[in-house]
Amino acid sequence: MTSYALRPVGRVQSTLTDRADAPRQPDEGAPEAWLVFDEAVAPALDGLTPGIDVLLFTWLDRADRDTLAVHPRGDRSRPRTGVFATRAPDRPNPIGLHTVHVLAVEGNRVHVRHLEALDGTPILDVKPLLGPAPER
Amino acid sequence: MTSYALRPVGRVQSTLTDRADAPRQPDEGAPEAWLVFDEAVAPALDGLTPGIDVLLFTWLDRADRDTLAVHPRGDRSRPRTGVFATRAPDRPNPIGLHTVHVLAVEGNRVHVRHLEALDGTPILDVKPLLGPAPER
Repeated sequence: MTSYALRPVGRVQSTLTDRADAPRQPDEGAPEAWLVFDEAVAPALDGLTPGIDVLLFTWLDRADRDTLAVHPRGDRSRPRTGVFATRAPDRPNPIGLHTVHVLAVEGNRVHVRHLEALDGTPILDVKPLLGPAPER
Repeated sequence: MTSYALRPVGRVQSTLTDRADAPRQPDEGAPEAWLVFDEAVAPALDGLTPGIDVLLFTWLDRADRDTLAVHPRGDRSRPRTGVFATRAPDRPNPIGLHTVHVLAVEGNRVHVRHLEALDGTPILDVKPLLGPAPER
């Protein structure tokens, strides 16, 4: 099957540097962070404003792509489960999905709350959360 | 910046074949579809069961990766907006995100409801929707 080239559009800047310290989910103690976008994609940020929530897509570049099953949350008392039924970072295409609240937009830098991604994590995409159909 | 190779893990099988006919969102008339996974990743499906909702990640292989701003929903009366503030398929890394309801799992094939992706669209990843923290 064909493969496709992901080209990161920026990087996460965060105080989180070690996978062992990273919270498993954003509401489990994740810090504020900066999303630093390449100058070339800055026009794609037009319309992002403080106060909105967005979906952030990252590439979990420290994940193991050969893992197909895990004990959920690393808990060996729980049965091994296929990675498509878990949020484990290890999976064939380790795309990270994070809902973050936009605190500020300064040029090509976006300040966000509650991001569990590690410092240096490549950014792939950002999408707004969808409101009900009449507001789209 | 480094690029990363996405390796699709399957394909969408759908009656939708033309981008012009595809609904913009799943609750705008999207049909049922099959997710057909490669045999090699079948163990990753273990734990997916009928009745649950999952997040499906696809690669929108017919999207234009050089587009950075669009008129939302193709409506020229709306101001041009950066693609990171819209759900337009055209964007630097055209990752599709779809919430789908699992109707059936038959080996490496998963039957789902309300999928607006076109027939043949490459599948990248599947993740469960997260419940509240105590249920994780």
